[in-house]
Amino acid sequence: MLAMADRRVKDEVNIIGIGHVELLVSDLDRAQELYVDLFGFILTERTDQALYLRNVEDRCHHTLKLRQAGKGGVGSIAFRVSCDQDLERLQRRFTELGLPTRWVAAGEEAGQGRALKVQDPLGLPVQYFASMDSVEWALQKYHTHRGAVPMRLDHVNALVPDADAGARWWMDELGFRCSEYTESDPPESRRWASWLYRKPTVHDIAIMTGNGPSLHHAGFTVKDEMAVIRLCDNLASAGYADAIERGPARHGISNAFFVYVRDFDGNRVEFYTSDYLTIDPDFKPIRWALDNPRRQTLWGPPPPRRWYEESMAVESINGDAMIEMHQPVMRATPNYLLD
Amino acid sequence: MLAMADRRVKDEVNIIGIGHVELLVSDLDRAQELYVDLFGFILTERTDQALYLRNVEDRCHHTLKLRQAGKGGVGSIAFRVSCDQDLERLQRRFTELGLPTRWVAAGEEAGQGRALKVQDPLGLPVQYFASMDSVEWALQKYHTHRGAVPMRLDHVNALVPDADAGARWWMDELGFRCSEYTESDPPESRRWASWLYRKPTVHDIAIMTGNGPSLHHAGFTVKDEMAVIRLCDNLASAGYADAIERGPARHGISNAFFVYVRDFDGNRVEFYTSDYLTIDPDFKPIRWALDNPRRQTLWGPPPPRRWYEESMAVESINGDAMIEMHQPVMRATPNYLLD
Amino acid sequence: MLAMADRRVKDEVNIIGIGHVELLVSDLDRAQELYVDLFGFILTERTDQALYLRNVEDRCHHTLKLRQAGKGGVGSIAFRVSCDQDLERLQRRFTELGLPTRWVAAGEEAGQGRALKVQDPLGLPVQYFASMDSVEWALQKYHTHRGAVPMRLDHVNALVPDADAGARWWMDELGFRCSEYTESDPPESRRWASWLYRKPTVHDIAIMTGNGPSLHHAGFTVKDEMAVIRLCDNLASAGYADAIERGPARHGISNAFFVYVRDFDGNRVEFYTSDYLTIDPDFKPIRWALDNPRRQTLWGPPPPRRWYEESMAVESINGDAMIEMHQPVMRATPNYLLD
Amino acid sequence: MLAMADRRVKDEVNIIGIGHVELLVSDLDRAQELYVDLFGFILTERTDQALYLRNVEDRCHHTLKLRQAGKGGVGSIAFRVSCDQDLERLQRRFTELGLPTRWVAAGEEAGQGRALKVQDPLGLPVQYFASMDSVEWALQKYHTHRGAVPMRLDHVNALVPDADAGARWWMDELGFRCSEYTESDPPESRRWASWLYRKPTVHDIAIMTGNGPSLHHAGFTVKDEMAVIRLCDNLASAGYADAIERGPARHGISNAFFVYVRDFDGNRVEFYTSDYLTIDPDFKPIRWALDNPRRQTLWGPPPPRRWYEESMAVESINGDAMIEMHQPVMRATPNYLLD
Repeated sequence: MLAMADRRVKDEVNIIGIGHVELLVSDLDRAQELYVDLFGFILTERTDQALYLRNVEDRCHHTLKLRQAGKGGVGSIAFRVSCDQDLERLQRRFTELGLPTRWVAAGEEAGQGRALKVQDPLGLPVQYFASMDSVEWALQKYHTHRGAVPMRLDHVNALVPDADAGARWWMDELGFRCSEYTESDPPESRRWASWLYRKPTVHDIAIMTGNGPSLHHAGFTVKDEMAVIRLCDNLASAGYADAIERGPARHGISNAFFVYVRDFDGNRVEFYTSDYLTIDPDFKPIRWALDNPRRQTLWGPPPPRRWYEESMAVESINGDAMIEMHQPVMRATPNYLLD
Repeated sequence: MLAMADRRVKDEVNIIGIGHVELLVSDLDRAQELYVDLFGFILTERTDQALYLRNVEDRCHHTLKLRQAGKGGVGSIAFRVSCDQDLERLQRRFTELGLPTRWVAAGEEAGQGRALKVQDPLGLPVQYFASMDSVEWALQKYHTHRGAVPMRLDHVNALVPDADAGARWWMDELGFRCSEYTESDPPESRRWASWLYRKPTVHDIAIMTGNGPSLHHAGFTVKDEMAVIRLCDNLASAGYADAIERGPARHGISNAFFVYVRDFDGNRVEFYTSDYLTIDPDFKPIRWALDNPRRQTLWGPPPPRRWYEESMAVESINGDAMIEMHQPVMRATPNYLLD
Repeated sequence: MLAMADRRVKDEVNIIGIGHVELLVSDLDRAQELYVDLFGFILTERTDQALYLRNVEDRCHHTLKLRQAGKGGVGSIAFRVSCDQDLERLQRRFTELGLPTRWVAAGEEAGQGRALKVQDPLGLPVQYFASMDSVEWALQKYHTHRGAVPMRLDHVNALVPDADAGARWWMDELGFRCSEYTESDPPESRRWASWLYRKPTVHDIAIMTGNGPSLHHAGFTVKDEMAVIRLCDNLASAGYADAIERGPARHGISNAFFVYVRDFDGNRVEFYTSDYLTIDPDFKPIRWALDNPRRQTLWGPPPPRRWYEESMAVESINGDAMIEMHQPVMRATPNYLLD
Repeated sequence: MLAMADRRVKDEVNIIGIGHVELLVSDLDRAQELYVDLFGFILTERTDQALYLRNVEDRCHHTLKLRQAGKGGVGSIAFRVSCDQDLERLQRRFTELGLPTRWVAAGEEAGQGRALKVQDPLGLPVQYFASMDSVEWALQKYHTHRGAVPMRLDHVNALVPDADAGARWWMDELGFRCSEYTESDPPESRRWASWLYRKPTVHDIAIMTGNGPSLHHAGFTVKDEMAVIRLCDNLASAGYADAIERGPARHGISNAFFVYVRDFDGNRVEFYTSDYLTIDPDFKPIRWALDNPRRQTLWGPPPPRRWYEESMAVESINGDAMIEMHQPVMRATPNYLLD
């Protein structure tokens, strides 16, 4: 982790929130069947190399990109900033900090203006962009809605060996605020995981302790609990019952009703609903003790071990390799897993 | 109305419940778009002359037939009996009563065994059948469900000039039981409408006072209130907002949450949910005073005048003419209509 | 199992369906808090010895009796017959068959007319009754509804060592029909479990292979999936998250969306929705292969081992002892349990 | 309307969003029965003069105040700012603009820090505050939730004679952004109504053309469409069916599923769900033509005339009188009202 200077990104750049995420898939046809026909994402554009997908609330070109690759994984996570000047400021600042960056030309990612990629201090491939093409809004095209009818990209959840330091980078340097966190008991009081936001929901990114850098999942908002139930029904009748890894159940943290689904490459997607807005300035971050079973599961069966132990490798910003993962500095595997 | 003999149909024939209904439509292509793509009925078979549709709980060939005709209306309402002998008994009995009957050969209506048609004392074209082809069950094929996902045909609602006498025929002669009724005040105490059942739900047929013989609507059960809301959303976004005639709202009678939709020929279909089972033998029919606004509308806006005044003409059992309608013998138009 | 004579109960007695069930509880105050305040049953009457509860669709005095006892268990399961003469016929027939019976005087069970108890050939304490006091209907008293808002008692699920023979008794002697069943592969083709009904739903009683005679659970219908979700939310926030034993998830058999809850005495109650009506006479019983994982779980996590292995002891009809359980004659424990 | 200077409130003050609203009621006991027991607001504090209510997502003392008064009306609408210095800046700026202001001492409104009231150029009594006591969060206390379970105060909807100029004040001076608007046709192109936001939802305040200054309604977010349906069921069974003025139905504008309820003093409250987040910077305000029937009603019955013609008078900031209303400068009553 880098030492931080007096001047910070957050003092000069306005990060609006999570923008899109790129997952790697081995078969675009199968991916289209699963993500479009069953999950219900809207296909904006298909190229030789990728599916560009959006949600029914989105007016932008895409919030999910599925890129043809040899196997599953994560190409990048992207955050939107206010303006093009913010990108310049980010580039200067990251360079000062000695972080590798790369400019992504306008259109290199379909529908997107010029963007900046950085391998951040946690090892995550993060992309910043300020503009994206507008496309038709499907919110009121109800008769075209399918599957879980995903509304918007809500968050990504990253695993890193030192999540306490990792969360401090996102908060202190980038200006993210914390809504909830899990922490070991005093006197150690070390943060095991932090839910961080720029847009006023519970999170744009969660930083959790684990093998990393890696991504645990990308989370998409659905309208209500019944959208989750219907998704499970649809997956089961279409032969994908085993793709349901965990849930439906309710998290204590974020109050979300959720289901986690793994695609055929092991990529993990969460369909998520009923969290809350974080617009109230009196809002104090909620602390959950690490041994409180209600944090993970307000109610519901214990998660399977693979939900805890498996995550998606992330790519280098040059696209030439997957970043090597390391063991966490802190251990907190619950003793109530389902093997 | 005919005088009734000592021996009754109900003593020798077991009517199981409503079986199917035939509506007349002017355009099978448009009907398929509306009934299959938007309402969500399942197309079992399409012939030159008709669409044969079923619901997701149905294992039988069809519960809704849409027949090509010059304009809207009702071809027949069909009830299922236990066995072929029941059909013979019905034919003998109806002949004794002087009612016109006609045998419908097996297969004359696709998928159906031999059936008997009768123009009943109320003037309604009623068909009785004992067997129908079985087809694939779609209940657990969730990923194929569409629109309102109709579960089953629940009931028809008929208008006749003398609904008090009409209901007595269905109860005394055919063995239907009454779940709820509306009645004028004593000393007259005349039934304005009766909800009658053989299967243990609130009704297989309602007999209401009005211009008739005619059919006010055919009612299909949907899973829950959200199926009704989603149907309205879908209709609106597909350009059919004006097809929604009344609702969503809740009836006092039957406790149903409902919406009434008119097709392009004026045929009226109700999507209906949250009534109750009538299996409890202690069940006493529920009386609603005619001037109780909660009977029609437990809550919700007043119905439009056309909902009260318009109904579907019914065909003669020979198919050669529509039956002439007559004015009701009793008047009870509410004073709170929406013009 | 008794040999069966030519004349059968089903030829002379009309069993309408499941009527009520009596569970034994160690603490009526705690039971009231759980069953009334949280589950949402309606308290019709409380005596020194029992809570008499009903559901929002019920017009009868009770469908669930919780009786003060030293520990959990089942006092009886009760079925309703058409008339008092049916009780006489049952008494004669059971006596011929050598089964122990006992008359229960009117009012001995609050609100109930004269009833007959029999220890049936499976060892189950079954009560037959023909009449019960009517009480206020709460279906349209929406503002008083609480918790899961149970609509009606749907079924009981019994375990017996020989479920193949047990189901034959209920079908051949008592006239129950089978909606679905699980069966071992040919050539053995032995029924492992049968879902049997008199009222036209999937079941009034299921007879499953297991340690018995015992009751696995009593199942109550709730309105929709959200009633199940809300119940889980309520239980969790009231400190009862651990009472949720299995679910929410969907069974393949019966198509039910369910949750199983254990009370503080280990009694197991299922809240259950979205099964289907069995009114269609063409309905063929659905066969599920014993090794089809979709039968138990169309989707959802594997059930915990205790859900498979634990059940409620049943009482003798004289109330003087719990009936001894025996091991099943057939073994079919799934290999995907959650320990 | 005042001329606007070069410097604007929006350049120096950060308005976070709608904070609370004060309605006048004639009977606190009846108000508690309706708002707490049936609507489901949480009572934080009751004084001799007022009920202080909050929603399940709120951690602040109140978002709805019901103040004892002779009849219905609106005491104030309150917006939250970032810090106390913002209040000073607002006071200076409003004084420069010649607007009447009044300091509200900390605690004068229970639970609230020092606040500033201003009678704004539209005549509305607007309060600004920067701090409020924190109280217990009820979001995860599911078993205590009641009625419609309101989640948060979403918006107020104000009527003024010149809504085009009024919306410009809120946007140009105060920094509100526009999400959707209705406009007359070119060449006039005059805005009839504007939906304006600071928090990233569709609106914190809508400014509509009508008799004013007045408030048409205060809108509270509920979780989903079923919360609206359940509220209607509860109101009907508790004898308040006639309090439902309009809906449930769906607006085109904002995509909200809604119901409008009038209390016994005529105060109008909207329960509202399924609008969308306005976090996307590419978001262009949505224009609705004034004669598009889908703007008011994506689907649903026409609104009753009183919904269009009646609104709540607003109080002067000194509390000594209700502000006189004036006729709108523009007429656009739809021709499809329900009389």
